[in-house]
Amino acid sequence: MAVIGIDLGGTKTAGLVLDGGGIVERCRIDTDASSQDGVMRGLLVVCSRLREDAASRGVAVEAVGLGIAGFVDYERGVVTEAPNHPLRDAHVRDILMGSSGLPVFVDNDANVAALAEARMGAGKGLRYLVHLTLGTGIGGGIIIDGQVYRGALGAAAELGHMIVCENGPPCNCGAHGCLEAMVSGVAICRRVEEMAAVGQASPMVEEFLADPEAFSAEAVCRHADAGEGVARDLLEQSGWHLGIGIASLVNIFNPDAVTLSGGLLGCLHHMEGAMRRSCEENAIAISRDHVRILTGTLGEDGGMLGAALLAREGLNAGR
Amino acid sequence: MAVIGIDLGGTKTAGLVLDGGGIVERCRIDTDASSQDGVMRGLLVVCSRLREDAASRGVAVEAVGLGIAGFVDYERGVVTEAPNHPLRDAHVRDILMGSSGLPVFVDNDANVAALAEARMGAGKGLRYLVHLTLGTGIGGGIIIDGQVYRGALGAAAELGHMIVCENGPPCNCGAHGCLEAMVSGVAICRRVEEMAAVGQASPMVEEFLADPEAFSAEAVCRHADAGEGVARDLLEQSGWHLGIGIASLVNIFNPDAVTLSGGLLGCLHHMEGAMRRSCEENAIAISRDHVRILTGTLGEDGGMLGAALLAREGLNAGR
Repeated sequence: MAVIGIDLGGTKTAGLVLDGGGIVERCRIDTDASSQDGVMRGLLVVCSRLREDAASRGVAVEAVGLGIAGFVDYERGVVTEAPNHPLRDAHVRDILMGSSGLPVFVDNDANVAALAEARMGAGKGLRYLVHLTLGTGIGGGIIIDGQVYRGALGAAAELGHMIVCENGPPCNCGAHGCLEAMVSGVAICRRVEEMAAVGQASPMVEEFLADPEAFSAEAVCRHADAGEGVARDLLEQSGWHLGIGIASLVNIFNPDAVTLSGGLLGCLHHMEGAMRRSCEENAIAISRDHVRILTGTLGEDGGMLGAALLAREGLNAGR
Repeated sequence: MAVIGIDLGGTKTAGLVLDGGGIVERCRIDTDASSQDGVMRGLLVVCSRLREDAASRGVAVEAVGLGIAGFVDYERGVVTEAPNHPLRDAHVRDILMGSSGLPVFVDNDANVAALAEARMGAGKGLRYLVHLTLGTGIGGGIIIDGQVYRGALGAAAELGHMIVCENGPPCNCGAHGCLEAMVSGVAICRRVEEMAAVGQASPMVEEFLADPEAFSAEAVCRHADAGEGVARDLLEQSGWHLGIGIASLVNIFNPDAVTLSGGLLGCLHHMEGAMRRSCEENAIAISRDHVRILTGTLGEDGGMLGAALLAREGLNAGR
């Protein structure tokens, strides 16, 4: 069975066709995030191109899966809100089904990333898995008994919005001290902005001040790699906070593994020691001694592969 | 089918016999918490008495269920550690099976309380339920698709050890700022102790100083009922912290309901407003608008009924 898997990101809309033998086609365009219509048009373009390219090889696509960074009502295929897209109460499934005539499955991007790691990545074959996508924001996916856990309305696993420090910095979601507000790319850059605001001087802060818009967590990582103390401390603190969040998840889920993916993995060598230490110190022994904390093995393909698996398994379940 | 359900607490060991028609026997003795042998002897006494009393009415007990406040390895029936008992790596299931010859099922007390609320209490018929037992400590139980969620080793749902404030007060588990360290009976009394230590004067603090050992959250509640501002503020703050924890759980599980039980419910009228407000302000809209926060309806029987249901369902699953 051939299926399309699309990862709808804030800057790129990337898709692939997966059949029994592996990945047979790829397509990637810029996301037009100026409007909901723009996002949806791009989605339709990627979907049609992949389908046509596959058809030209004699491969018939049977379903489409979609992973989107945002709050997704899985049952209805509706994106209720997305931090990096202009999607609000967007009936993505119905629109895409209407235009393609194919069954469409829509889920949160971290849920499908978790599915991919559980089926073909670092968590292959494990029954209980907690997945964190560490990037601009922090997403979460939960695998229970081998299946994606979605809760009552398909909105579960917002692990980035677990509150780890109730008096912490404000989060985009409206709360304070969410894991996302403490550890994400945005959170790390905000800490540098705060250092700049109080006049703390360092090469890292100077780079920030020279072009705040272009600054990113990768820049912090470069400065840390170069041995700059404040950059190293900042990433170490982020690792510590991350370990606190992981400890809570270990206490809540007693999982076989916690898997990590996303752009922030590029900084993990500066975060990992503190992350493992704080998890070690804060999680309960029985669960802590069992769990493995693993780096995802699927990289950037994880989202697309997970979306394709979502479509394949959704189609199989419906048959 | 008649089964025994026992709630093994730090002060009382209480059990009942449940058959198709309801509760047919009860037995309750003081827990001898001076040693592991003492605890186990009491357990055997309650178990034998209930079985004999039931037999004298012609009711044959077929299995025993046990709920214990502590870290339980469900698969092995072992209590690895218990805060209020001298149980350490106690092979409770094997000991009780050896002496009774009956199948025995051992679980965390909050897991079985969750089961009871999901089967016959406030959460009856709901698929996704998060249960919190609010007492001296804070326990948690998770119902997914109508079943107790236990994770890889049966140690999941330690919801009292979700960290809500990473720089918060120390918890018995070794971490800081766990929900239990912020909200439980112990946490509330510790706040009063702190007030006393800095010389803050009020009738509540005077009562504490007169007899610190006898002081409890109920005393705080009495002072709040009498209109004492510091007592009211303290319970309101506890309610706020509890709402933060519930918000995280709502974001993680997207449950149909969060149910509450335990001794602290006696103070709930002082906590509830702040609890609902902080949950409202901190949880994501889609999950927050769906979830109901409910008071459990089974009261003190919840633990025993849940333990009996654990035995009944365990026996049925094994057949």
